[in-house]
Amino acid sequence: MSTGRLYGVGTGPGDPELLTLKAARVLGAVPVVAHFAKRGNASNARAALGGLPLRADAVELPLLYPVTTEIDRHDPCYKRKIADFYEASAAEIARHLEAGRDVAVLSEGDPFLYGSYMHLHLRLAPRFATEVIPGITSMSGAWSMAGAPIAQGDDVLAVLPGTLPEEELARRLAGVDAAVILKVGRNLPRIRRAIEAAGCMDRALYVERATRADGGVEPLAARDDRPAPYFSLVLVPGWR
Amino acid sequence: MSTGRLYGVGTGPGDPELLTLKAARVLGAVPVVAHFAKRGNASNARAALGGLPLRADAVELPLLYPVTTEIDRHDPCYKRKIADFYEASAAEIARHLEAGRDVAVLSEGDPFLYGSYMHLHLRLAPRFATEVIPGITSMSGAWSMAGAPIAQGDDVLAVLPGTLPEEELARRLAGVDAAVILKVGRNLPRIRRAIEAAGCMDRALYVERATRADGGVEPLAARDDRPAPYFSLVLVPGWR
Repeated sequence: MSTGRLYGVGTGPGDPELLTLKAARVLGAVPVVAHFAKRGNASNARAALGGLPLRADAVELPLLYPVTTEIDRHDPCYKRKIADFYEASAAEIARHLEAGRDVAVLSEGDPFLYGSYMHLHLRLAPRFATEVIPGITSMSGAWSMAGAPIAQGDDVLAVLPGTLPEEELARRLAGVDAAVILKVGRNLPRIRRAIEAAGCMDRALYVERATRADGGVEPLAARDDRPAPYFSLVLVPGWR
Repeated sequence: MSTGRLYGVGTGPGDPELLTLKAARVLGAVPVVAHFAKRGNASNARAALGGLPLRADAVELPLLYPVTTEIDRHDPCYKRKIADFYEASAAEIARHLEAGRDVAVLSEGDPFLYGSYMHLHLRLAPRFATEVIPGITSMSGAWSMAGAPIAQGDDVLAVLPGTLPEEELARRLAGVDAAVILKVGRNLPRIRRAIEAAGCMDRALYVERATRADGGVEPLAARDDRPAPYFSLVLVPGWR
């Protein structure tokens, strides 16, 4: 009996119509659909499927993070718990693959751009056939919704996690034509100060829940310092 | 009579299955489908639709660049010809919109990431309703095909045009965790030297025609200096 195939499937930024035709085809055909979620929460990637039909007999396999933001991510305890979780998740998926069942792992946005799927891929790709189906990134969703061309011609674009130290953020912003800052959440006040320091507040945009019905765009200068939701980012368009 | 709506539609990196459900729906409904192409060549964005059905009475509107690489792009003559071309293209599309016809402009990859569509958007958005449908970028297609996670955690990712000077490329590569170099073409020897200088040749990948049937991946170190085709890029994955 042959083993199953592992698919990493990008589900895009939230609007179910932003799934690709390929993702829709594969998700309608596989017997096992796995998705990451915070314990007690629905999976964002699963929600991005909307009403997409799965196989009638498809098994859904939630992979529940043991911790998310309760423990500092530089704490050794956090690192060990997360590593154990990825090991156990990979083992659970491997049992399906060994039994000949294809498994699709949903990934918000694009699987290989800051996606949890990559932790499973690296553990399973040496043993099983794999295929990664790219997805629309949250940043593409954001600049499309904002009507803001992000980069043209010889522009250099930086993708920066909002978790970076303020001085580093400011320095990197000052050295590029265009930037996207991800992982905004509780880092918003620090990100704002870095953007002020880099002199690009006049064109910075704050985007929340891009491409979703409850999403919105506003100038970063107009946004207050309340923590931002998980699905938010800051754009500094290169085009002037 | 109301005016038509302008759609900027990302067609993704080449595989017609990487169109989004939304792009497929809109392209099946609009009466006018415009696409950029080099004179004498088929449009890459049009080819990425594969056999997708358009409306039976849809009008296709090719927008043919007057020049591409025959004149240096810093030459004032090039700049004037290109600016005139965008003006004339916008005027031609405006006539359809004024007559109440929706127009979809195809854009390889994602419309707002180095896409020609943005030149039309900026000219027409003040006068007409617009909507940008994001597309899978060539870089997502490339790292997915290569099986190469590009960025995780606090990684900083730079998107760099291969047209930058060699020293600048090397300096920027040395300062980030991960990078994508676009616009490879005839710049390959220079890009290779910059990657050597930045010390990341051991993990650099050369990707040609990502997601297409004739596409391929190889270590950059193994690629010779023949000019690369238009659809090629270099990846420096952050994950080690």
